[in-house]
Amino acid sequence: MKFTESFIKTSKSVNSDLESVNARLLIQAGFIHQEIAGVYTLLKLGLRVLNNIEAIVRKEMDKIGFEIIMPSLSSKSNWEQTKRIDSVDVLLKATGANKLSIERNQTEYILNSTHEEIITPLVQKFVKSYKDLPIYVYQIQTKFRNEARAKSGLLRTREFRMKDLYSFHKSEKDLLSFYEKVKEIYKNIFNEVGIGDDTYLTYASGGDFTTGYSHEFQTVLEKGEDTIYLDKKNNIAYNREVTSEEDAEKFHVDFSSLEVVKASEVGNIFPLNTKFSKAFDFTYVNEIGEQMPIYMGSYGIGTSRLIGVIAEKFADEKGLVWPFNIAPYKFHIITLHGDNTVEESSKIYEILGEDNCLLDDQINKSAGEKFNDADLIGCPIQIIVSSKNLAQGVIEIRSRSNKFETFTLALSEIDLIHSKICK
Amino acid sequence: MKFTESFIKTSKSVNSDLESVNARLLIQAGFIHQEIAGVYTLLKLGLRVLNNIEAIVRKEMDKIGFEIIMPSLSSKSNWEQTKRIDSVDVLLKATGANKLSIERNQTEYILNSTHEEIITPLVQKFVKSYKDLPIYVYQIQTKFRNEARAKSGLLRTREFRMKDLYSFHKSEKDLLSFYEKVKEIYKNIFNEVGIGDDTYLTYASGGDFTTGYSHEFQTVLEKGEDTIYLDKKNNIAYNREVTSEEDAEKFHVDFSSLEVVKASEVGNIFPLNTKFSKAFDFTYVNEIGEQMPIYMGSYGIGTSRLIGVIAEKFADEKGLVWPFNIAPYKFHIITLHGDNTVEESSKIYEILGEDNCLLDDQINKSAGEKFNDADLIGCPIQIIVSSKNLAQGVIEIRSRSNKFETFTLALSEIDLIHSKICK
Repeated sequence: MKFTESFIKTSKSVNSDLESVNARLLIQAGFIHQEIAGVYTLLKLGLRVLNNIEAIVRKEMDKIGFEIIMPSLSSKSNWEQTKRIDSVDVLLKATGANKLSIERNQTEYILNSTHEEIITPLVQKFVKSYKDLPIYVYQIQTKFRNEARAKSGLLRTREFRMKDLYSFHKSEKDLLSFYEKVKEIYKNIFNEVGIGDDTYLTYASGGDFTTGYSHEFQTVLEKGEDTIYLDKKNNIAYNREVTSEEDAEKFHVDFSSLEVVKASEVGNIFPLNTKFSKAFDFTYVNEIGEQMPIYMGSYGIGTSRLIGVIAEKFADEKGLVWPFNIAPYKFHIITLHGDNTVEESSKIYEILGEDNCLLDDQINKSAGEKFNDADLIGCPIQIIVSSKNLAQGVIEIRSRSNKFETFTLALSEIDLIHSKICK
Repeated sequence: MKFTESFIKTSKSVNSDLESVNARLLIQAGFIHQEIAGVYTLLKLGLRVLNNIEAIVRKEMDKIGFEIIMPSLSSKSNWEQTKRIDSVDVLLKATGANKLSIERNQTEYILNSTHEEIITPLVQKFVKSYKDLPIYVYQIQTKFRNEARAKSGLLRTREFRMKDLYSFHKSEKDLLSFYEKVKEIYKNIFNEVGIGDDTYLTYASGGDFTTGYSHEFQTVLEKGEDTIYLDKKNNIAYNREVTSEEDAEKFHVDFSSLEVVKASEVGNIFPLNTKFSKAFDFTYVNEIGEQMPIYMGSYGIGTSRLIGVIAEKFADEKGLVWPFNIAPYKFHIITLHGDNTVEESSKIYEILGEDNCLLDDQINKSAGEKFNDADLIGCPIQIIVSSKNLAQGVIEIRSRSNKFETFTLALSEIDLIHSKICK
């Protein structure tokens, strides 16, 4: 993508009311635009990061489930059936907006913040006997939450993208075996998006979903909203919410011996057991003709939230620093003023492919401004095209992710850049 | 995809309350699931068709604009500024759903049915001078409409997917020139999704958007919701809503001489002119320092609606018939009982690729049921694997789209099927 043909606009400064590091940087670098508190537009750069993250999530999910899309609107009666209409405090409802609506449809809908209330009766229609089980189904879709406080940028929004997977089983044993499989798949995902080393499987309370414990994946983050007790030796963590004496006994762990760090939740998995199937009276007929309860699990990853966590985690004083796999563009070509620089930049852009490159071809912009923008936007590899270097038949390569490590590359080797740099 | 590993379920019959042909067939064939009136889940097959349609739309849109995603929630004040908060009767609003919400955020949001109120102030922030124009930006995203009557399946829903493109120009001349370009791009899209021959550029009223005429793309459809006057000679049509005597004079056309047919809208383009830019006081500075009005256009295609129109248009008494480019799978492999049929079907499935094939590998299903399902689901090419044919070293190919034209193909030529059939 060429800067001059795009709608990519960086800003020198942003609204100083913004408390959150990720919102400030993502807005300033032109990835997102804040519409209202907790509600954002993803601009071109932000959408590219989201697409990269969701492609990784989808690839891993397709190994264990199949994709559908459920709607955002649902019937109040589904939420009444599970009684969560009264207990989930972040629920939004939708109704006609104005006087003209009175002559129209007056139904009150729920705007789904999660989809147990929709997937359970849906799967129920298709499942009669043990032969129809297990079923694993997921979606990547938009969710709504009426957050009381939405000041953490993409970490806590009122509208967000989420992957949610639901599993339906014949027995608790089957559920737990699948649950372990999802843990491994989640580890793959967090490795691929670039936060694997600092992300921990974490015991947490079951929340709305279950009376037992559930699991979160928590990424160590200086300004994270959660506090976790880290057991690095066993590669496991505990959310502070489950660190009572009683919990300590259950887990056989001495919390006072563990490192305490701030972290941000990037995924969660819940053994729902029969909570939702019972609410909908969803059973199956087993091998000997008995009606048996269905065991369920649900497994979430907030894909737009991940943009915020990753932005905040790797940012430095110059701006954003994207992991290679999810960067909006792998290469940022900085064309300095001088003989042949525009022509050579275009050639490099052609060779590397417009889908891999952001080409700063703006004429009325100083070298300093171009460097600042490239550092702010945070593509992993910067390619600097100057007439001084061209005279020696080379270009300069500068690694954004590796502390600006810099070296030169012969122009004739440009087509080898993938094999030389992108390991 | 293998039937036995999927969540694809066809039904013998569906709720007889369903008035709409597309809803009945799409539900019966396992493409969609109705949650509540006008609100559907896209199951695996339906989502695959949507993805194919949206990939075509995106490819064409990327030629003229760049993609972002705006949110569904917006501020009431944006809609107050254009006064459409009172005039758009399909608007839904979102507010806290229960008593617990009272201690939370009490903002009332609008659930966007279209995005002029969001994109205009957004682009306004980035545009100061003539140098920043034109701007072309699009999204593919979910929209909400509080339809009074939602009985036409995917043709008229309360939640739907839509591509909307917005353009911002220095002058009316620039706007009109781009407007003509979009017409051509739209024709490409309707050709590629398989309805080009029966889709007409149609004059219509401007609706909420403009006091002048706008254009729709209407696809001839027996049970379409619109009536159009078709001027085949000039390859143009007129929506019945603009066929008054006054309109006849303006268009220099004798409506009584034209063919009158039922049709369904598949796209629309609106020259908004300065309606929205004026509402937001959005101007730019021209070459000689004057503040000038911004001219806008908006251009929509309902991508989930297209699934319904195409399903309904090509369906026959046996079921759905998908155009090749948007079919959920190109091939439907029907494995009959007999020697080696399962093994050979698997081989064919491997050769053609699991992403191209639906393999009916169900054991407890009769040949008749398998044929009925294949006809109902409507993949364009059926591959029938029977022991009788295998004994002669051939498989049977049956064209769903071409009146079940049938011929045999040597097993050794399977890998040529793409070049032989998929032209």
